Amino acid sequence: MAAPLRIALAGLGTVGAGVIRLLGANGALIARRAGRPLAISAVCARDRGKDRGIDLSPFAWEDDMTLLAGRDDVDVVVELVGGADGPALALARRTLGAGKGLVTANKAMVAHHGMELAGVAEAANGGRGVPFLFEAAVAGGIPVIKGLREGAAANSLSRIYGILNGTCNYILSTMEDTGRDFAAVLAEAQALGFAEADPAFDIEGTDAAHKLAILAAIGFDAGIRFDAVEVAGIARIRAADIAQAAALGYVIRLIGLADCEGRDERGRPRLFQRVQPYLVPRDHPLAAVDGPTNAVVAEGDFCGRLLFQGAGAGDGPTASAVVADLIDIARGDPGPPFSIPVAELEPLAPADPGERRNRAYIRFAVADRPGVLAEISAAMRDAGVSIESLIQQGRPEEGGPQAAEVLVAMVTHEGPERAVTHALELLGGSASFTEPPLVMRLLG
Amino acid sequence: MAAPLRIALAGLGTVGAGVIRLLGANGALIARRAGRPLAISAVCARDRGKDRGIDLSPFAWEDDMTLLAGRDDVDVVVELVGGADGPALALARRTLGAGKGLVTANKAMVAHHGMELAGVAEAANGGRGVPFLFEAAVAGGIPVIKGLREGAAANSLSRIYGILNGTCNYILSTMEDTGRDFAAVLAEAQALGFAEADPAFDIEGTDAAHKLAILAAIGFDAGIRFDAVEVAGIARIRAADIAQAAALGYVIRLIGLADCEGRDERGRPRLFQRVQPYLVPRDHPLAAVDGPTNAVVAEGDFCGRLLFQGAGAGDGPTASAVVADLIDIARGDPGPPFSIPVAELEPLAPADPGERRNRAYIRFAVADRPGVLAEISAAMRDAGVSIESLIQQGRPEEGGPQAAEVLVAMVTHEGPERAVTHALELLGGSASFTEPPLVMRLLG
Repeated sequence: MAAPLRIALAGLGTVGAGVIRLLGANGALIARRAGRPLAISAVCARDRGKDRGIDLSPFAWEDDMTLLAGRDDVDVVVELVGGADGPALALARRTLGAGKGLVTANKAMVAHHGMELAGVAEAANGGRGVPFLFEAAVAGGIPVIKGLREGAAANSLSRIYGILNGTCNYILSTMEDTGRDFAAVLAEAQALGFAEADPAFDIEGTDAAHKLAILAAIGFDAGIRFDAVEVAGIARIRAADIAQAAALGYVIRLIGLADCEGRDERGRPRLFQRVQPYLVPRDHPLAAVDGPTNAVVAEGDFCGRLLFQGAGAGDGPTASAVVADLIDIARGDPGPPFSIPVAELEPLAPADPGERRNRAYIRFAVADRPGVLAEISAAMRDAGVSIESLIQQGRPEEGGPQAAEVLVAMVTHEGPERAVTHALELLGGSASFTEPPLVMRLLG
Repeated sequence: MAAPLRIALAGLGTVGAGVIRLLGANGALIARRAGRPLAISAVCARDRGKDRGIDLSPFAWEDDMTLLAGRDDVDVVVELVGGADGPALALARRTLGAGKGLVTANKAMVAHHGMELAGVAEAANGGRGVPFLFEAAVAGGIPVIKGLREGAAANSLSRIYGILNGTCNYILSTMEDTGRDFAAVLAEAQALGFAEADPAFDIEGTDAAHKLAILAAIGFDAGIRFDAVEVAGIARIRAADIAQAAALGYVIRLIGLADCEGRDERGRPRLFQRVQPYLVPRDHPLAAVDGPTNAVVAEGDFCGRLLFQGAGAGDGPTASAVVADLIDIARGDPGPPFSIPVAELEPLAPADPGERRNRAYIRFAVADRPGVLAEISAAMRDAGVSIESLIQQGRPEEGGPQAAEVLVAMVTHEGPERAVTHALELLGGSASFTEPPLVMRLLG
């Protein structure tokens, strides 16, 4: 058997410990499949003394993480430190610059600096390139980057969309199952470990946006444009919205969606990227995705609709994806990180969502007084928004912020998003609203 | 850009024509992603003059298929002729023996001769090996072989199961939606092109068994043992069975399932492989898989439950998988066909299903006369089968083969399959049965 692939592990949190456990449990099987053993040479973490329930004595210890990149006994560095910048980025740059491979689960770093790092990886080793892989950065244990980059490589994709954040999906599907409100379910999710103590990153959609930007780059041969992802979170969704959606035959899911729409002045497609709660028809495969599960759909011109589903987080699944990348590297040269050299990726301009045609769910929280419905209806009419159905909840929502508050929910006929935006502008200053209107699209 | 990967195409049916159309439509995009163009040099089919709606003039034509393997302008032969033996096998052997790569969609050939061909592929080229890939042989456009062989490569899998035949799934889900009987839905499926004129291969489970045997070999690092797949088809399922399953909260799907169970005398795991209609709980992801869609679940010790879903057949999806294999070859050496060299694959002995613990659905079609129920109940008691629920349909099934026929359906508590087999043996010669009992397991 060939010489081992020698690994340095930076970061010994749950995922790092998971990688060590995985290589311990399945090392022989992996060596057979990879054609050679995967062997950890050195590790590094903030606290050397911490009890992680794993034996670190076989591995060299580095106090200074960036020194891992310079070790002679290391072929690939696995970066599991996290954070878009700071030590993780310094290590990544140094590793690739030193001609060593890099495997990371760091979605924030890849979303912000993936293009730069891919460029460094491709230029390394005298231009022959070094591996830079990040399967674990998107959708945990699901091999979706491989699915797009290799499995669907023969296709021109029309659309990529999916459930990319397990915390939000747990909260939304639990709200659906229990009828409880967001705050109560979030607190429970925190207690159960499905949500962080500071949940902002997840529930505001940032985490899903990182993943979407990476998937869109791979699926559309485009440069990563994280800054161009339109993001909305789930914190404003009420139990009443979920009940209303259910009555219409829908469930609410936080969806990341990317497609190409329109053309820029040079004739290149424009890239649309959005993370937002959507109303998903109950017979759609994503409607059945409950709990912390992730799922990604890719629609291609020849393959049709592909669905990849599985655990979106957790030490086991994430370690599984990290080690799959290491096996790929052990087997041979995996090629450019985005399959196309960075210099050839199209810097696609963002699409203007105004012309997108959608059905929309719009929910108003209003003071319970005469004339409010007329005011809303007039704005819709003046903006050219055609209303398909409208429900006014007569009774104040239990536990709602204002006892005298009434919810008005409507679903529009299909029309341009611009019209809905215009209607809300017309209503902008209304003194009748107890909070800004909530707009969600129906997944078509 | 590097030199083209030069391809010979054997077989110009719907998939072959699909490959030519795909390379025409997405050639530029594929060349960028693969790092070099994919170029068809030569083609071969039975009838040169047939109008396929595609222009064959750019390609050399061979009348004798096996000569494709000897052409100097060919790096990889794509075999789309079909059939486990005969011309397809002769071409495959000659191609690999001549040191050229082979890509095939031929599940029957891989299931029957995959080990031999993989051995030839590995020995070719002075022992350096040549590529032999067959993603299109399993589940059409879904990259599930890649998903297992690479995406889940870090895992020890406990179980692989899924919906592997689109024809059966179309028939079963249509029976479910319409309440109609098997024969009527089969006839409609044939008219719509979802079933072949001779449907035996699909509805008897053989096609799904080919695919399962290939998946099991990859997932469990085992030699292919198609002969050891226990197979039952769907032709005996009645509308009443589907209605009964629905009342219990289940749908019926033809499932291919493989796992490792027990040990042989040398301590190696035994391989269990079964294709059979199962009762699938309505909240299971496979229950939502309707129409000709395929879906495969793999359960691993670290990744958890992965689901791959998409179009299981058709020219576009199958061509997508064929070309994905070609892109893999264009990018570099994909390694041994089963990831582990054939000589190292474990020749796993078949498992005895007798000790498997399941809940079972057993449906008896009996003559409507006194004492039948007592006879059945006594046999169950004597064999130690514990009955969870029992439904006797009083009224004869409309259109049933015998007006005086009554259906008795039961669900057992979990117990060893051996006990159910024994009960049916005790009942074996019963003159009360109008047809043999139908046994389906509940997917756990």
